[in-house]
Amino acid sequence: MASTQADRVTAAVMIIGDEILSGRTQDVNLNAIARYLGTYGVDVAEVRVVGDEEGEIIAALDALRTRYDYVVTTGGIGPTHDDITADCVAKAFGVELEEDAEIIAAMTARFNEPPNAARRRMARIPVGGSKVVNPVQGPPGFQIGNVFVLAGVPSIMRGMLQDVGHRLKGGKVVIARTVRVEGSGEGVIAAPLEAVAKNHPALSLDSYPYFSPDGYGANLVIRGRDSDEVNATVEELIAALTGVGIATIKRIED
Amino acid sequence: MASTQADRVTAAVMIIGDEILSGRTQDVNLNAIARYLGTYGVDVAEVRVVGDEEGEIIAALDALRTRYDYVVTTGGIGPTHDDITADCVAKAFGVELEEDAEIIAAMTARFNEPPNAARRRMARIPVGGSKVVNPVQGPPGFQIGNVFVLAGVPSIMRGMLQDVGHRLKGGKVVIARTVRVEGSGEGVIAAPLEAVAKNHPALSLDSYPYFSPDGYGANLVIRGRDSDEVNATVEELIAALTGVGIATIKRIED
Repeated sequence: MASTQADRVTAAVMIIGDEILSGRTQDVNLNAIARYLGTYGVDVAEVRVVGDEEGEIIAALDALRTRYDYVVTTGGIGPTHDDITADCVAKAFGVELEEDAEIIAAMTARFNEPPNAARRRMARIPVGGSKVVNPVQGPPGFQIGNVFVLAGVPSIMRGMLQDVGHRLKGGKVVIARTVRVEGSGEGVIAAPLEAVAKNHPALSLDSYPYFSPDGYGANLVIRGRDSDEVNATVEELIAALTGVGIATIKRIED
Repeated sequence: MASTQADRVTAAVMIIGDEILSGRTQDVNLNAIARYLGTYGVDVAEVRVVGDEEGEIIAALDALRTRYDYVVTTGGIGPTHDDITADCVAKAFGVELEEDAEIIAAMTARFNEPPNAARRRMARIPVGGSKVVNPVQGPPGFQIGNVFVLAGVPSIMRGMLQDVGHRLKGGKVVIARTVRVEGSGEGVIAAPLEAVAKNHPALSLDSYPYFSPDGYGANLVIRGRDSDEVNATVEELIAALTGVGIATIKRIED
């Protein structure tokens, strides 16, 4: 499995918000973060979604930040009373929150008056932290230690991500190739797939079945950091699948 | 906060699969499960996404099943070598997996021959567990103790869910009402919202800002188990927002 490689750089994603847990909102941030970090060779290894509760947020953050190279959080950094992420992150790191003069100045310019108490909450950065640029709208996120604290609104979160990548110690990027089998179920794919997987312990070979009105089959995904091995394994897998009588096999660009 | 109520019935969702962590696949199962459980008065209180690794799956499952009333897992119950959920759940409960004669019979009928070794893996149920009907296609999921093990393919997962609800000890269903403020930012909403929230510790009042080409504003969601209190709080909140000069306020059916 790729995940046991010593050179793996890992991240966890922590999604904060009752609206995700209740099903009111469909999370799309995890997917965007995973793809973005992947381009820097950083693997998302675990995700937690927690509600807007201090104890839960701090406990999850401490579990994740001590275990993975990076943590990216989304949500809970607005001006309302349920936005407690900054407070929780500061507590987890044992530091105070400090008003940032630049953020206050930007708010004052935007509203033509000094920000009210609610907006001032968004100008607070933990001592020792640094701002993460918000190119979309409103105040910035921040980084403290190995934790990046980003907005929950997807468009703003994606904007903030652009100021994250250059701060990462990147890993070797994972290459993924897909072999699609059409008209055969996983039941006949399993044996050749497993045989090939056993030959390549440094790669991960996974099967994702699909069912649609047009037919069924499975996408077999070969992932690893050595592109030569990944590409050779694509051919080896196709040969193995052909060997058990599977006829319709396609190489898919990923 | 609703979450501190003693009569709350809680669940955790555990999503198993490297394809979600890598960003290859957008998870939609969490949202479907949260909404479904909500109709039974069961709150999703935490979610974890873990990769296809035995140690990770067992550790997360043990953390969740001892803490919440129920756990629903998705993914990893197919026939291929990376489908290890059943094995992990059985290990977590300290029991063996046993081939289920009914499942084998159904497979034999479907394929007109006894299932091969890969498919037989899907006929295994932990000792002491019970099947969860799969009305869509393929073998069933299962329940053992407070853990429901469902498929990862969304259409199949949603089918299996229909055999979960009647097994739950339901809680009092949470009522949600939404007040939408148009053309005002959270910065001006925060103070009246917090004041109303403080009057109703048994409810949760949360603010979800939106930004679109047509304008911006926030959806203020009032959630709780006492519908009279929720409805009265809608009116109290509208009065408080009006009191600070906010003009465009709408009641939204949720």
